[in-house]
Amino acid sequence: MPQLNVQQLQDFLRTDFPQSSVVVESISERGACVRQTINTSHLRPGGTVSGPVLMAVADIAMYVALLAEIGIVPLAVTTNLSIHFLRKPSADKDILAHCQLLKIGKNLAVGEVTLYSDGYEDAVAHVVATYAIPPRA
Amino acid sequence: MPQLNVQQLQDFLRTDFPQSSVVVESISERGACVRQTINTSHLRPGGTVSGPVLMAVADIAMYVALLAEIGIVPLAVTTNLSIHFLRKPSADKDILAHCQLLKIGKNLAVGEVTLYSDGYEDAVAHVVATYAIPPRA
Amino acid sequence: MPQLNVQQLQDFLRTDFPQSSVVVESISERGACVRQTINTSHLRPGGTVSGPVLMAVADIAMYVALLAEIGIVPLAVTTNLSIHFLRKPSADKDILAHCQLLKIGKNLAVGEVTLYSDGYEDAVAHVVATYAIPPRA
Amino acid sequence: MPQLNVQQLQDFLRTDFPQSSVVVESISERGACVRQTINTSHLRPGGTVSGPVLMAVADIAMYVALLAEIGIVPLAVTTNLSIHFLRKPSADKDILAHCQLLKIGKNLAVGEVTLYSDGYEDAVAHVVATYAIPPRA
Repeated sequence: MPQLNVQQLQDFLRTDFPQSSVVVESISERGACVRQTINTSHLRPGGTVSGPVLMAVADIAMYVALLAEIGIVPLAVTTNLSIHFLRKPSADKDILAHCQLLKIGKNLAVGEVTLYSDGYEDAVAHVVATYAIPPRA
Repeated sequence: MPQLNVQQLQDFLRTDFPQSSVVVESISERGACVRQTINTSHLRPGGTVSGPVLMAVADIAMYVALLAEIGIVPLAVTTNLSIHFLRKPSADKDILAHCQLLKIGKNLAVGEVTLYSDGYEDAVAHVVATYAIPPRA
Repeated sequence: MPQLNVQQLQDFLRTDFPQSSVVVESISERGACVRQTINTSHLRPGGTVSGPVLMAVADIAMYVALLAEIGIVPLAVTTNLSIHFLRKPSADKDILAHCQLLKIGKNLAVGEVTLYSDGYEDAVAHVVATYAIPPRA
Repeated sequence: MPQLNVQQLQDFLRTDFPQSSVVVESISERGACVRQTINTSHLRPGGTVSGPVLMAVADIAMYVALLAEIGIVPLAVTTNLSIHFLRKPSADKDILAHCQLLKIGKNLAVGEVTLYSDGYEDAVAHVVATYAIPPRA
């Protein structure tokens, strides 16, 4: 059951990742949804959202879903992330990232994230990521 | 919409992969479920299903889901496969593999597969794989 | 044998990726090395280079290595990228990315990229990526 | 510096993985090379070495390289493995797997493995894998 609510997670992101403009949309059982508003700084030539932007949003979605479950553990770090690019994202739609945690272990958490251009049914990318969780007191 | 039914896919597997004992359980919209009965030849020391067995079952689940959609294309080959091991599988339960295709492109198909020990709710492993589809006449 | 030299690749990057400040250091047989000067915009809290920056540099290293071999093919796109984070990068050192192509096929190219903080012997991250190559006339 | 020699590692494999016929060829600084003799049980239709066989050999190569460095830790388990298939392996050549460890941490080790058909210069597959290392007394 989530230990933190949307507002607490948003506050943590604002403080800990001031450079990120990701908005926490919702949290659910072992899951979270975040939104990245897209502007021209996120685009690459050809008029599509750049790959690193998608990876960054997926990484934060996973981080939010994890913190919602285990509480604020600022030292949790990504150990690996694998992304498959599926379709060209729309240049003028927000990116929505839905994360579902697959495992929350003592040392490692694994989750998958599906990314969409807002309003479209087919995913633009799919991510699996692992976080290392530092020992808790 | 699937082009082939369970029996047609099972027949193809029997002919094309005579060494595999995987059974096609069901097909669905862009998805498939297959079952691997586990015997001692699938176990590794410690009494758990070996990693390569899980990878093999996932690979076939993806192949079945893909063929169900595009028809029998025997030359489709895996180009990459990434597996995360989540929990120790039970030594005396079948492995069930649920595949959902994420993309069916002209040249590439991407799918994810979640693997379970039959009767358990938590997944034992998660796979994302890419297949290259040969040009069709 | 590379078809393009360092200057030609740098010119292409400047035109096609004006937002990137990556510098092409060298090209070699099926390989390339690029450098990203790090400033505070690349850091995340804790004083380390952010993951998405490492992914972006690796992606460009692979793109440069590929274009050096096959010539300017602006439509080549990443289909998947997997990164393992190995050590915390230094906040005040450039990132160097060494790419070696593992396969240059007709439709797909695969490469690995090892990333370093300049001056350190141990890698900070390791990437494997696949590019889809559009049909050539 | 390796803590175990080839014979000690081979003896451990024989005892702990009696089903595997992998032979330890050599160990080096943070690396190992193993050989899998190929017979018809390793082939798939089309006369090529099956993907799960390549994954299994890579997994053992990584395990051997890790044990050589940290000593016999039988509970080390693979947490994720990502394989890219590069070329069709020869049906009548041994598979050689060269592993190089990229990181040996307290809890996690990461390595890459390049697989060859014996006698050929171009790799048939490339693997990156992570092992979880249980706490040591």
